[in-house]
Amino acid sequence: MAIVDLREITEKVAGIFMREGVDKETAELTASVLADTEIKGIKTHGFLRVPMYVQCLSSGGIKPNGNIDILAETPTMARVSGHGGMGIPIAVNATKLAIKKAKETGVGIVTVCGSHHLGATGYYADMCAKEGMIGICMSNGNAMIAPTGGAAPAIGNNPFSYAVPAGKYGTVLYDIAMSMGSDMKILAMCKNGERVPDGWFIDKNGYPSNDPEAFRDKGVLLPFGGYKGYGLAIMVEMLAATLSGAAMTKAASAWNKIPSEEGGNVGHFIMAIDISKITDPEEFTARAEELIKSLSETRLAPGADKIYYPGEKEKINKETSLASGKVEVNDEVLAKIEALL
Amino acid sequence: MAIVDLREITEKVAGIFMREGVDKETAELTASVLADTEIKGIKTHGFLRVPMYVQCLSSGGIKPNGNIDILAETPTMARVSGHGGMGIPIAVNATKLAIKKAKETGVGIVTVCGSHHLGATGYYADMCAKEGMIGICMSNGNAMIAPTGGAAPAIGNNPFSYAVPAGKYGTVLYDIAMSMGSDMKILAMCKNGERVPDGWFIDKNGYPSNDPEAFRDKGVLLPFGGYKGYGLAIMVEMLAATLSGAAMTKAASAWNKIPSEEGGNVGHFIMAIDISKITDPEEFTARAEELIKSLSETRLAPGADKIYYPGEKEKINKETSLASGKVEVNDEVLAKIEALL
Repeated sequence: MAIVDLREITEKVAGIFMREGVDKETAELTASVLADTEIKGIKTHGFLRVPMYVQCLSSGGIKPNGNIDILAETPTMARVSGHGGMGIPIAVNATKLAIKKAKETGVGIVTVCGSHHLGATGYYADMCAKEGMIGICMSNGNAMIAPTGGAAPAIGNNPFSYAVPAGKYGTVLYDIAMSMGSDMKILAMCKNGERVPDGWFIDKNGYPSNDPEAFRDKGVLLPFGGYKGYGLAIMVEMLAATLSGAAMTKAASAWNKIPSEEGGNVGHFIMAIDISKITDPEEFTARAEELIKSLSETRLAPGADKIYYPGEKEKINKETSLASGKVEVNDEVLAKIEALL
Repeated sequence: MAIVDLREITEKVAGIFMREGVDKETAELTASVLADTEIKGIKTHGFLRVPMYVQCLSSGGIKPNGNIDILAETPTMARVSGHGGMGIPIAVNATKLAIKKAKETGVGIVTVCGSHHLGATGYYADMCAKEGMIGICMSNGNAMIAPTGGAAPAIGNNPFSYAVPAGKYGTVLYDIAMSMGSDMKILAMCKNGERVPDGWFIDKNGYPSNDPEAFRDKGVLLPFGGYKGYGLAIMVEMLAATLSGAAMTKAASAWNKIPSEEGGNVGHFIMAIDISKITDPEEFTARAEELIKSLSETRLAPGADKIYYPGEKEKINKETSLASGKVEVNDEVLAKIEALL
């Protein structure tokens, strides 16, 4: 890992996007979201994605814009299109709209089509929490996990996140994908000669395997918790894609080089709930603190150092990075970014 | 299993509730929800619960009413109290309110305190789907699963369900609890001398175990998918309890005999989304069908007979039972109900 100046690398990334035709404001916004994810330690969704976005921008798979158009709306809901633009600024704009509606009516739901990979969904849920709201964000994506009983990829790894303002604990920020383990982690296990834990994937014939090499040979990721995770992936697909009008499952290939002339058609679902409309927000915060405190006081299992709340580790990472103004970036990722300058 | 007449047993159950002071309409509603769950084959949340509800009604742990009072509301949200009444009719009334709000604004959210065990949460999500809406329902409950890293029960098994109208497939109806396996299943494994699958529970010292006897000796259920399931349990607690004003985690003991003079204080969260407000509902249904069809056509894994969608097996069970007018009821459960007549 290289330790680099946070502001410098963020500016560099923005500059790379601008060279691909993205306007300054959108480029800087996109870079700042990736930086926020990077400093939280979510390396799979941080600067690692820059070369992938650039490749799509170059090929036309992503249009160099981040605006949304409203296709249909009520005071509390909207269905919008990003017209094949960049997932991150599209999702930021959709979240702003959800927050605006929640401020007016108590709830704001925005469902998005014509978007692309939006980075870490937790960022958008967290935007809601920063306004004192409960936020939920989901996205569909290219089909990469097997349904329960299936032996081939059939549905996306469909990330799901929520954020709750929790007073002195900051934000409880949960952000998961639907597979038990990630392809990137398994590929790292290949390199290190490690065994893959049970339940992470099936081999090309549909049999469970612990051999990372069997994953490389057309293995397929499994949903977490079996049919329970599979069913959540369907919920995300229904809300983020079926409802929004986005491409579904195998058609929703975010990383195709040239998915269509219109750019990508990934879908998102964003919801903001304004706590203050139905309860005293200070009382809510005190109760959220009480919940997290009670969980943290649970007797520890052997080998555990602490009961963490969702997002706690990332919060510590982020604070450390912001205090120093530095961020750790993977050497290969840094080299790729430098090569794009 | 005994095979009994569906209408007769449902009337008997309603009669039992009426003898505990529940009015006719509320008793019949509660019995019909339990019957619907029983014929779906969800035996853990059907008539099995009758003696437990009766015990709570007798002890004052459940008040014999099912009404809700609105504590706060906006056109799109409400926070309501069931004042310690019966969970099932309270949840039905709260769902009706969510549907009414969704019809007006597009989204209805109702968060409930002062309630009790509500049976299978899927019933309420399904109520929304019957109106052509997407429904979500969650409930907290007594602390019975260990947090990630913990060795003691700290949070409820917090059920979560969603329902989506899917045309010729009926309703996609997902209904899960947060533990990998249920206590009832493990106790059945004790009887049959079976081993418990990995990841279901830890023993009293916090170590993973496959021995069902170790579960009986103060074992603790684990969330499904490790920290992913744990984090979902926290989301349910936040939305159903922290936001509603219900009792949280260890205080939310639905099955205490005398929890307080005010009855129980379990919390729920119900959301209805009116699809027709932002898209053509027929187009939505066609897309939902397309999604389910594409998943069902996935190449099968060895040993699998079919890719099911959430709720498909329960739909088949229900249709079979309705066609014959009969339902299979566990002998012990039936004997307990007969004893209450």
